[in-house]
Amino acid sequence: MTKTKLSMAVGLAIVAAGANAQSSVTLFGVADLGILSARASGVAGVNSVITDGNTSTRFGLRGTEDLGGGLKAQFWIEGAVSMDTGASGTTSVDNIASSANGLFARRSTLGLQGNFGEVRMGRDYTPTFNNLTTAVHPFGTNGVGNAGQLFYPVAAGGTTPRTNVRASNSIAYLTPNLGGFSAHVMWANAGAAAAAGTDNGRYVGARLAYRAKDFTVSAATGKTEYATGDYTQSNIGATYRMGPARLSYLWGQNKVGVTSTKANMIGVQYQIGKGEVRAAFTTLKAKGVANDATQLAVGYVHSLSKRTALYTAYSNVDNKGVGTRFSVGGGLRPTTPGGNSSGLEFGVRHSF
Amino acid sequence: MTKTKLSMAVGLAIVAAGANAQSSVTLFGVADLGILSARASGVAGVNSVITDGNTSTRFGLRGTEDLGGGLKAQFWIEGAVSMDTGASGTTSVDNIASSANGLFARRSTLGLQGNFGEVRMGRDYTPTFNNLTTAVHPFGTNGVGNAGQLFYPVAAGGTTPRTNVRASNSIAYLTPNLGGFSAHVMWANAGAAAAAGTDNGRYVGARLAYRAKDFTVSAATGKTEYATGDYTQSNIGATYRMGPARLSYLWGQNKVGVTSTKANMIGVQYQIGKGEVRAAFTTLKAKGVANDATQLAVGYVHSLSKRTALYTAYSNVDNKGVGTRFSVGGGLRPTTPGGNSSGLEFGVRHSF
Amino acid sequence: MTKTKLSMAVGLAIVAAGANAQSSVTLFGVADLGILSARASGVAGVNSVITDGNTSTRFGLRGTEDLGGGLKAQFWIEGAVSMDTGASGTTSVDNIASSANGLFARRSTLGLQGNFGEVRMGRDYTPTFNNLTTAVHPFGTNGVGNAGQLFYPVAAGGTTPRTNVRASNSIAYLTPNLGGFSAHVMWANAGAAAAAGTDNGRYVGARLAYRAKDFTVSAATGKTEYATGDYTQSNIGATYRMGPARLSYLWGQNKVGVTSTKANMIGVQYQIGKGEVRAAFTTLKAKGVANDATQLAVGYVHSLSKRTALYTAYSNVDNKGVGTRFSVGGGLRPTTPGGNSSGLEFGVRHSF
Repeated sequence: MTKTKLSMAVGLAIVAAGANAQSSVTLFGVADLGILSARASGVAGVNSVITDGNTSTRFGLRGTEDLGGGLKAQFWIEGAVSMDTGASGTTSVDNIASSANGLFARRSTLGLQGNFGEVRMGRDYTPTFNNLTTAVHPFGTNGVGNAGQLFYPVAAGGTTPRTNVRASNSIAYLTPNLGGFSAHVMWANAGAAAAAGTDNGRYVGARLAYRAKDFTVSAATGKTEYATGDYTQSNIGATYRMGPARLSYLWGQNKVGVTSTKANMIGVQYQIGKGEVRAAFTTLKAKGVANDATQLAVGYVHSLSKRTALYTAYSNVDNKGVGTRFSVGGGLRPTTPGGNSSGLEFGVRHSF
Repeated sequence: MTKTKLSMAVGLAIVAAGANAQSSVTLFGVADLGILSARASGVAGVNSVITDGNTSTRFGLRGTEDLGGGLKAQFWIEGAVSMDTGASGTTSVDNIASSANGLFARRSTLGLQGNFGEVRMGRDYTPTFNNLTTAVHPFGTNGVGNAGQLFYPVAAGGTTPRTNVRASNSIAYLTPNLGGFSAHVMWANAGAAAAAGTDNGRYVGARLAYRAKDFTVSAATGKTEYATGDYTQSNIGATYRMGPARLSYLWGQNKVGVTSTKANMIGVQYQIGKGEVRAAFTTLKAKGVANDATQLAVGYVHSLSKRTALYTAYSNVDNKGVGTRFSVGGGLRPTTPGGNSSGLEFGVRHSF
Repeated sequence: MTKTKLSMAVGLAIVAAGANAQSSVTLFGVADLGILSARASGVAGVNSVITDGNTSTRFGLRGTEDLGGGLKAQFWIEGAVSMDTGASGTTSVDNIASSANGLFARRSTLGLQGNFGEVRMGRDYTPTFNNLTTAVHPFGTNGVGNAGQLFYPVAAGGTTPRTNVRASNSIAYLTPNLGGFSAHVMWANAGAAAAAGTDNGRYVGARLAYRAKDFTVSAATGKTEYATGDYTQSNIGATYRMGPARLSYLWGQNKVGVTSTKANMIGVQYQIGKGEVRAAFTTLKAKGVANDATQLAVGYVHSLSKRTALYTAYSNVDNKGVGTRFSVGGGLRPTTPGGNSSGLEFGVRHSF
């Protein structure tokens, strides 16, 4: 069993009292806090208490109702919490701007499921994001070694993409498992009807995945139309399990207007008793924006129980040429041309 | 049984563990998502994923404690969620301005109940709002056909009324059922003590209702003092049930300063097996603000279970003269003088 | 048993279904609403519905997991709610500025507990704040008579302290009970790594407490570094129980830059059946900021059950010299030089 399983929330099923005995709502969440020591070329170092070093802190409600005849309804509302400050998360109501009142902005979906798969509406991960999570990347998108550092888009030409993780106003179709194959397609509109006559903020994307016993491969692409320059995200991920080891490879490209960044990652996870050693190495090539860079990340996660783990990770990002754009997750950005950024973190992650 | 019953949240009673066996808190909510196709004269049409087409998405906690001697304490905190974006709702801390941090702004009340009725404090529906809900109107205040389009006030002379739905800082008295009669009176102050010496934002209102086996009638009026022009809302509603049919009538008036809008609605709901057909026709007359208008709304709700339903609705609003003020719920406002606005929606509503 | 015990939230343990039978999450909260009649010299009086007259309204999730070998993990996320408006609370992400999105800003902590005590990270009460609560002060920090009126800092020289109650980004160590003695030390950084190279917003503080059967004494001090002038808070509290009576004494000092305020409080609480009479008298001396003042507060709390109580309190604050800085909790600030502020409140407090 891999560690990525352990990072899932262990929800508590609260069985309904009274007549609707089949009803249930699950109250669930994750709390993650740690300490980060961050350094960068040309900048004074900082030691700080941080949130989400291993897994994103969250709380949520979800439930599934059996409607008979193989049909099920599932709702899911889940919000981010910064454990270091108690602050809630942000959303984007139009997939263009960021707004602060994102109470359940990690996910707010309602779906109908059956033999045909699932039709799901609301705010949810885009198909392209799924390849950046722990489904492929050893560090997912958390902590100093997170995939977001080199696999997220770089704002350019007035466009700050908002759909590299989630899209609001979406409708998606997820196929069932078809002999190991599965697909996920999503369409999301820009937001309020006030935006009539413009496609600014509209997302369309798809992901195709294949899963065998010890092997997975998946490819995804998505495009968001922006008045200031469209955003396209594409990626391919693969994992291979050999006994206690899991190898992973991720390729990703982000195009914002006429600019482009491409990254390649090779990763490994290795189970040792209740612990997992992790490492990832990523190279990034940039065109028309930012600079080339490489990232090395190593880490260790030790399970105290199914719900609680201690973790540590170290990562270093090297900017190439005279670039200073990239840094480790939660870290400091260098000011010295071609400088590097590094971070060492320790923390606790607890699921409830 | 009518469909309006089905739109109530099916809460899950979580019985307390341990000694306080009589204690309980109920975690409850509704999730509603759909698709809207909106059109309007002179404007490009829009298709979008929408929230709350049938019932307002919400989550909340509530509980009742038996204090003995017929006395009970009841708390209720409930907040809005935009299921399409995960965003939380808004409140008005002074009944004058809108503010974003309305976590439990749908309702936050604490009441003491007994044979005498209930004394309830906090943020709650105004007595006048209750006649606009599904208690009278076939579409309540949700979706393309919602009552708010022609029964809500039109801002005028610097006054944007905030008390047509709820009031903050309120204290209310609700009588018990007295042979079919009941009354609800509310007083709400403007907010913080900082507003000393001014009545700006103070609300006073009352509702009187009578309920027989197949017949209900209710009348309500409320006044909010604003420095820029007082706001008065009055309405009368009646419903009559004949077998599978329910007929409804609603009259409402909103005065903002020296301006006024008056609306009349006739509606019908008809049960067919697990479904309900709905229709409503409304005419509006405006004085000193906006323009006259009419609205037609038809819809159908199909229950998949006690908790889950599919729905569809179509509505059209015609602006009279050269007016362009009114549109269907969630829809587009026409730009052509005297133009119309229409919307067709499909969706799923799920209670938990 | 004292009334201060009753003001604790009565949480509901929700036992996990299925295999993790030792797991549990507790959903808990308090709702408090009342009416305040406020008066002040030179200002028109105000009557208003208020929140938190006896206890701060809140809702939260918490849980403890037994990790074996005496080790436990505990998470706690808790947010403020204004019951009069449904609004959420505020936080300070950097211990410098206030920000609105404080969903769980009352407390968001994750701790590891054992025989060694507890290591706790996140946003939490500062050690110094604990002496201002009902642990020492008869009125705690709620209502017209609350300790915050004369024991909180006065902003000066550009510094508005944010750590007199809580600190974000904190790591703390709490000793176990060592023969009646206990200690609490806390360090908190200023926030994001963006603040590299500055100590602006960094907090360090400690509290030492001793508890015998009928006697408690505790002393605490904390310092927060601010670019505009450091903030130091120190206090000493003692309580003594004699049958139905509890006597209390509190000394506190707040230094903001070169200014300083010092306050002394003597208090008494007296149990009569299901009720408690409370009184507190405080004098304040100010240097370089604001003015001297005195505060008298009297109150009565009547328990209807373990979870619900009615309360009333009256308080008067006299400003000395030509000062107008101080007022009663939630009250009006006088405009007449040397004027006074008074408030009378009635309310209901309900725990769930």
